[in-house]
Amino acid sequence: MNPFTIERVGEPTVISKLQISYTADQDVVLYNPVVKKNGTDDMITPKTPFAYFEKAGPREKLYFEPTQAVAGIVVCGGLCPGINNVIKALVQTLHYRYQAKKVFGFKYGYEGLTPNAPVQPIELLTSHVRDIHQFGGSYLGTSRGPQSISKMVDTLAQLELSMLFVIGGDGSQRGALAIVDEIKKRNLKIAVVGVPKTVDNDLLYVEKTFGFETAVEMSQHPIRAAHEESRSHRNGVGIVKLMGRDSGFIALHSAVASSDVNCLLLPEKPFSMTKLVDYLQARFKSSGHAVVVVAEGAGQDPQNKETDKSGNLKLKDVGVWLHESISKELKGRNVEHTIKYIDPSYTIRTAPTNSYDSIFCFTLAQMAVHAAMAGKTSMIVGYVQGEFVHIPICKAIEKRKVVDINGILYQTFLDGSGMPELA
Amino acid sequence: MNPFTIERVGEPTVISKLQISYTADQDVVLYNPVVKKNGTDDMITPKTPFAYFEKAGPREKLYFEPTQAVAGIVVCGGLCPGINNVIKALVQTLHYRYQAKKVFGFKYGYEGLTPNAPVQPIELLTSHVRDIHQFGGSYLGTSRGPQSISKMVDTLAQLELSMLFVIGGDGSQRGALAIVDEIKKRNLKIAVVGVPKTVDNDLLYVEKTFGFETAVEMSQHPIRAAHEESRSHRNGVGIVKLMGRDSGFIALHSAVASSDVNCLLLPEKPFSMTKLVDYLQARFKSSGHAVVVVAEGAGQDPQNKETDKSGNLKLKDVGVWLHESISKELKGRNVEHTIKYIDPSYTIRTAPTNSYDSIFCFTLAQMAVHAAMAGKTSMIVGYVQGEFVHIPICKAIEKRKVVDINGILYQTFLDGSGMPELA
Amino acid sequence: MNPFTIERVGEPTVISKLQISYTADQDVVLYNPVVKKNGTDDMITPKTPFAYFEKAGPREKLYFEPTQAVAGIVVCGGLCPGINNVIKALVQTLHYRYQAKKVFGFKYGYEGLTPNAPVQPIELLTSHVRDIHQFGGSYLGTSRGPQSISKMVDTLAQLELSMLFVIGGDGSQRGALAIVDEIKKRNLKIAVVGVPKTVDNDLLYVEKTFGFETAVEMSQHPIRAAHEESRSHRNGVGIVKLMGRDSGFIALHSAVASSDVNCLLLPEKPFSMTKLVDYLQARFKSSGHAVVVVAEGAGQDPQNKETDKSGNLKLKDVGVWLHESISKELKGRNVEHTIKYIDPSYTIRTAPTNSYDSIFCFTLAQMAVHAAMAGKTSMIVGYVQGEFVHIPICKAIEKRKVVDINGILYQTFLDGSGMPELA
Amino acid sequence: MNPFTIERVGEPTVISKLQISYTADQDVVLYNPVVKKNGTDDMITPKTPFAYFEKAGPREKLYFEPTQAVAGIVVCGGLCPGINNVIKALVQTLHYRYQAKKVFGFKYGYEGLTPNAPVQPIELLTSHVRDIHQFGGSYLGTSRGPQSISKMVDTLAQLELSMLFVIGGDGSQRGALAIVDEIKKRNLKIAVVGVPKTVDNDLLYVEKTFGFETAVEMSQHPIRAAHEESRSHRNGVGIVKLMGRDSGFIALHSAVASSDVNCLLLPEKPFSMTKLVDYLQARFKSSGHAVVVVAEGAGQDPQNKETDKSGNLKLKDVGVWLHESISKELKGRNVEHTIKYIDPSYTIRTAPTNSYDSIFCFTLAQMAVHAAMAGKTSMIVGYVQGEFVHIPICKAIEKRKVVDINGILYQTFLDGSGMPELA
Repeated sequence: MNPFTIERVGEPTVISKLQISYTADQDVVLYNPVVKKNGTDDMITPKTPFAYFEKAGPREKLYFEPTQAVAGIVVCGGLCPGINNVIKALVQTLHYRYQAKKVFGFKYGYEGLTPNAPVQPIELLTSHVRDIHQFGGSYLGTSRGPQSISKMVDTLAQLELSMLFVIGGDGSQRGALAIVDEIKKRNLKIAVVGVPKTVDNDLLYVEKTFGFETAVEMSQHPIRAAHEESRSHRNGVGIVKLMGRDSGFIALHSAVASSDVNCLLLPEKPFSMTKLVDYLQARFKSSGHAVVVVAEGAGQDPQNKETDKSGNLKLKDVGVWLHESISKELKGRNVEHTIKYIDPSYTIRTAPTNSYDSIFCFTLAQMAVHAAMAGKTSMIVGYVQGEFVHIPICKAIEKRKVVDINGILYQTFLDGSGMPELA
Repeated sequence: MNPFTIERVGEPTVISKLQISYTADQDVVLYNPVVKKNGTDDMITPKTPFAYFEKAGPREKLYFEPTQAVAGIVVCGGLCPGINNVIKALVQTLHYRYQAKKVFGFKYGYEGLTPNAPVQPIELLTSHVRDIHQFGGSYLGTSRGPQSISKMVDTLAQLELSMLFVIGGDGSQRGALAIVDEIKKRNLKIAVVGVPKTVDNDLLYVEKTFGFETAVEMSQHPIRAAHEESRSHRNGVGIVKLMGRDSGFIALHSAVASSDVNCLLLPEKPFSMTKLVDYLQARFKSSGHAVVVVAEGAGQDPQNKETDKSGNLKLKDVGVWLHESISKELKGRNVEHTIKYIDPSYTIRTAPTNSYDSIFCFTLAQMAVHAAMAGKTSMIVGYVQGEFVHIPICKAIEKRKVVDINGILYQTFLDGSGMPELA
Repeated sequence: MNPFTIERVGEPTVISKLQISYTADQDVVLYNPVVKKNGTDDMITPKTPFAYFEKAGPREKLYFEPTQAVAGIVVCGGLCPGINNVIKALVQTLHYRYQAKKVFGFKYGYEGLTPNAPVQPIELLTSHVRDIHQFGGSYLGTSRGPQSISKMVDTLAQLELSMLFVIGGDGSQRGALAIVDEIKKRNLKIAVVGVPKTVDNDLLYVEKTFGFETAVEMSQHPIRAAHEESRSHRNGVGIVKLMGRDSGFIALHSAVASSDVNCLLLPEKPFSMTKLVDYLQARFKSSGHAVVVVAEGAGQDPQNKETDKSGNLKLKDVGVWLHESISKELKGRNVEHTIKYIDPSYTIRTAPTNSYDSIFCFTLAQMAVHAAMAGKTSMIVGYVQGEFVHIPICKAIEKRKVVDINGILYQTFLDGSGMPELA
Repeated sequence: MNPFTIERVGEPTVISKLQISYTADQDVVLYNPVVKKNGTDDMITPKTPFAYFEKAGPREKLYFEPTQAVAGIVVCGGLCPGINNVIKALVQTLHYRYQAKKVFGFKYGYEGLTPNAPVQPIELLTSHVRDIHQFGGSYLGTSRGPQSISKMVDTLAQLELSMLFVIGGDGSQRGALAIVDEIKKRNLKIAVVGVPKTVDNDLLYVEKTFGFETAVEMSQHPIRAAHEESRSHRNGVGIVKLMGRDSGFIALHSAVASSDVNCLLLPEKPFSMTKLVDYLQARFKSSGHAVVVVAEGAGQDPQNKETDKSGNLKLKDVGVWLHESISKELKGRNVEHTIKYIDPSYTIRTAPTNSYDSIFCFTLAQMAVHAAMAGKTSMIVGYVQGEFVHIPICKAIEKRKVVDINGILYQTFLDGSGMPELA
């Protein structure tokens, strides 16, 4: 069976009144469009069956009567460019397109769904959200950490919600899955649709997550700073730590975009401190300086299993560690040097979206509303080969997408920088 | 037969020494990954054959001996963000990766390929191009208009070129086709590979062309200006003309990204001046102002066939015409108003790339070098479903890609703006 | 008598409760701190008497009882960066510092002060203005052109205004003078204080007007565009028209800041088209391109006396004229060339302030409130030698400040560009 | 005697050939243009003598024969926006205006002046510096710490330098003074002119130092990030540490410009942690969040006397300390909260100049060249009341300029933020 089959709250029987071109459940997107052809130049009729995703889009038949629908929105986890664009488009699509009865915003993450929420749910009108996309941050606030599933579902039931939109990372989507289970147990008819939020862009099956392009753009500033600091000092080293706990996408894209980065350290690729410092010394000789970009998950001890309250692995601060270790090693080699270390995390996470992400977020959020109105549940909206699709939460969180060390972009970096093998 | 089959200068027999993961000619990208499934939830084995594109990438077998290869680069047509990134990456890939013998840059477009070139071809070293990507414009200059094909091929032969890279729009790629024909006639072994340059993003089969995302980003500034001017005046109208002769992609994307645009006029969608002004008056009543974005090819007389020296249709200046026509119509209706018209064309075309386009250009140019080294010719490098591919020039210039008026993004605009039907 | 003596509505007898360090009317700022010393190295006691300005700042004795004061704010003329910062700070200072009874905002310029105002005056609370400084434009709108003085003063009287703040250029300050006269005639006690708004920075006696630094900053973008366009074409000329009807401050400052401008045309300095084109041709030879910055008041016919509805001289569009004239002259000389002309006016005028202007506007507006509360009238707040001062409107509008062609900055431009004498 | 009298290397006897309007040594700028008038409205003839500064500018009589002059440039201390603009304008003015014989650039600070310099002095041509102002950092590199005065003067003598330009802070200017002493001792004729570099803007007598306005502009980004982070979390606190070891100018200006800062901690104003946290709690109640800007010299232990190798006091990292102390105090009060701390130092220091600083640097550097050519020595170029002036190094380094806690700008901050007394 196709592993990407989407669940529903119930049979869709309500006829949509949008009168636009609808997407059918039969419209699917093949999982992988790259195939091996078998030698001839004919058109291809592949022998192997394809896995596929449901294409996202407005459905002609809905499960919920739109004008009776009560929706809720919650944001969990760290900040990321685009949260407000998503909130704005959810609210606008619910109100303008579907004339939904009510939209609740839950404040400060899952805590806002509990009875002891420090701030009560607020009713969201389109006038509230008109300009919020111009600012970074989260209009609904956010928080980390789990809450009682049972109490959260109590709130959903009490407010008579038809659908809950969870803007959050894989920890939060795991929470959404648990909420779905509790909903089923109580036989409630509440759709739960996730809008995947991971600035690291490490969501499995998904080509791009919102905020990623803005994050790469914003990373250019600290890289430029590191470049200027390093080349203004004799044997200068500029280190920039970028987001990326398990996957180095931001670091890799930022390094290629900048083309001033000499050394790139990713979670996907272990390195030896000795070889790293050898390389730095070679750079000192040839150019007098070096710029190092490191993803936060690089250089971690694979034995470490300690976790924080969201259940994420506690990482050592690789930037600080790198700064100290390189300095120590260079001193040991009697090499005078200057190291400047930059950790730009918050400046990146709080940026307003660039236009790419602005469009991306607005469209993504609409797709989420269409899915929920059609009764789809336990799914997130993903983006695959230029198409928005539905992906079961359980599949998306199976593991994380990582950088392909043999792929085009990593090669592009190696070509541009001349970085040698550091393992 | 697959219509997207790529020609070669000759059989590839040289073994590449790159020692990285090579792409095989058998690796192909399906033209359209969206299919209709036939009702069941099984994996799909489509009945219909697929058209496909050759996947771009380094080939294990080359046609040219890299260290003997002499390459040429020429830029034609209007400016567009990213030209310098492409030049830089062509030069770097040729020198660093393939140790090419020589790289010539031809100055000021096809004119630079002729014997009467005002500036002689220059030899391009990596030191010349190290920082050029930080600036907009074209390091090699550019020009419009055709030149003698025969004389240009004389130059190619005289300089003993192995490969010519043509960075240019569809007019220039038509020129490249003519050059290929002349090369064949003379039985020369020169590969001609195009790097498609159209800021309008209207290239058939190709999802995205370089510079487009930067252009959309840069369009946000004049739209913001139009928004502030219009809402600071009673019955204020701000008009922004954006690039897009045949296709309104920049206008559409910019309007959605901004979410402050009330009225969008595209080449793909005729409109009535009466209905347009009715809508503006409705906006005056509800909000006191309106922002109009118009693509340069909108509102043109379909009978007009006059062309410029590059063979492009001469368009009336739709921005100026719109300004005057709206003003006249409003005066006729006795409505006091203020109209401000902004034409930001050059500020957009000369912007340095954002990080998205920076990465895009660097990779695109590498793919062009890989293709040429393998002896591929008469092709451009395209981008389809997240993959770089080879496309025959003759297919790519058949007609232009246009905005799908029934598509998701146009709907997104209509939803956000509430613009009524204006036809 | 000191020509800069400030009038009052009446004697200040109310004791201020601000409890901060007050500025006394006896604190004055010398008009010109540059003097000739007479040969010895002793301390200077100048023989000549100095003119001086009253120093702005909070006064210990006020004329109005703050908590009874009703204030009005109106914005007239074209947009300029910083209007919203000024409005915000006026409202905040009136409410937070002085607990004023009421603040009215008049919409769309002087028209908003008339009985037939299309939009009624709005009461301004601090909550309205909290974020407006982040946007360009005018929160209260604006308009050009005169209105009935008598009817405007009727409105002031009817709303029982204590003070009117006029944010506007010298046309609007002339209007303010007329309002003052009518107020005196009726024996009303209404202070009229101007916040001078001229993006051209051409206010007599005043070193800097708000928005000027932002305008110079924003001018860098079109100059960069002109630079890239011109050097990407053979014999390319990039022309940028900048604001400056009578004075070329924006053009001069922008040209020096950029250091890519080769030719600068100011209202203060006539030029010959022949010599201009000679110079362009010399540039073509030496560098292949040229960048021209022209202030809108340059190259005007001194005989022309036609005016618009605000009473400003109607200027020919010097940018369009220059484009055509240079092209014609070069064609006459058989010189192939490409000219790109950029008119960035609205993009500059609508920019949000940079931080310099943000601070400047906030402080300027506070000074205006302090002055009005003390009963000062018929004055504007100026900025002289790093100090905010009071200047009688009648003095400030006597004539316009112009660029000193023998001054340091113009020399800096000549040195950097090598521009020859063009007269 | 006027304390600001400038020394000379010798009598100026060479007639300048610049043929522009010269500045005479008799043109002086009064130290303080703000005076108390004595009650009447007449013109003022002050009784008290004024101190004054020599006005900077080109002199008609020079000490050095320009075409024989050999100049040297060195940059010391930390990075700051504008260093490259200064270098560019020094080189251009020396070559273009004065046709100087040679200009040497010493690499990596005072170390570059010693015999064991890791990089030899480079000859600087105008072609080297044409584009360097577009980048931050220092084209000549920089370093901290003292070097042997005697050895440095050996180098000056050996290269037959006529003049040395020292771009550096007060530590470096102290070094320059020592160099002057050694020069005098050896009876050499070498002028030493300082271009004061202190991003903190804390130079005595000097209104503004280069890079300051850019630094304030760049500080807006991290403040915005802190604002978004703090208001997206319940009881969120965003802390931004800004430059300012002894004086809080950057912090104060940045806070006023942003108008989102709630709490400002300056070196000039001690505070109690208890009152600070009381205020934060009050903000939590009223608004749910708070933004704190702290200058790096705030909250230091006045007893601490430890210094680094440049002789600067070693400060504790007030940002880290504040983060920890506030967190501890809030935990002690059982208040759940989230604190995000941002240290943007390098991103600010390495920014290219905004247009204000670009103009400022270009002009400042020219004034330095004019002064040196006239034989002035042991001085820096300052900026007072809108005029460039000569100031003896010994006066300028006497102590540091600090923020006036009773001044207008600090009041502006208090008014806008409502911050209570925290001492």
